[in-house]
Amino acid sequence: MTAQAGCELCELALPVAWAGPKFSVIIVDDANYPGFCRVIWREHVREMSDLARDDRLLVNEAVYEVELAVREVMQPLKVNVASLGNVVPHLHWHVIPRYADDAHFPAPVWAQAARQPDESILAARRALLPELASAIARRFNP
Amino acid sequence: MTAQAGCELCELALPVAWAGPKFSVIIVDDANYPGFCRVIWREHVREMSDLARDDRLLVNEAVYEVELAVREVMQPLKVNVASLGNVVPHLHWHVIPRYADDAHFPAPVWAQAARQPDESILAARRALLPELASAIARRFNP
Repeated sequence: MTAQAGCELCELALPVAWAGPKFSVIIVDDANYPGFCRVIWREHVREMSDLARDDRLLVNEAVYEVELAVREVMQPLKVNVASLGNVVPHLHWHVIPRYADDAHFPAPVWAQAARQPDESILAARRALLPELASAIARRFNP
Repeated sequence: MTAQAGCELCELALPVAWAGPKFSVIIVDDANYPGFCRVIWREHVREMSDLARDDRLLVNEAVYEVELAVREVMQPLKVNVASLGNVVPHLHWHVIPRYADDAHFPAPVWAQAARQPDESILAARRALLPELASAIARRFNP
């Protein structure tokens, strides 16, 4: 199966930080979480354990490289990594930089918000996104 | 660093489905999520990207094997996999079987609950846990 009509990740139209034959990396435009990235598998596959072994290792390695880029540029207190896909069952990984002052810390970003983050802090983090895009591209380009 | 005083995962006292030299697998006693498992790294390490390459591959493989055991026994609609660690920054992975009738579906389990799951359905899933423990042990024992 390569594409499924109506799946927003099969029909991905967002600008990507890096796109290869098997997966893409996007920097999610999340107002509260500058630096939130996704690794999106190209084919419409449901679970990690549906992938062939080489592809699974490739995804794991991609998530690792994005985590490194996020740590290097965004300097988070913690990185959160998750593959959920309940709403869009097309394999993708969230890589989320977390900070003590972010909207939900220490709860997961999907919990009820704990605070409204300071706008100047968010703006400073948002200013790092071009550097993050470069760091991601550098890690995946040969 | 091998252990940190006060870290509940360094001082893990739960019964484990499998324990090896580098990581353990536990079946979490979660009332709403029978079959919820965790893969817990033994050493007090913060991020996946703090691990040496071989150890990182070992964790990824362990999470994969637990996902397979969960799919085989629990027959979920979807598997959720996440490494967060904001509260307990000691590397661990959640592997969570999800169903359309569970407490939060399609939201993440950390969101606000959407419903109270049917007790007889939970009981039927809970009855599978000994089989899940066996399936996990079988996958890790040589």
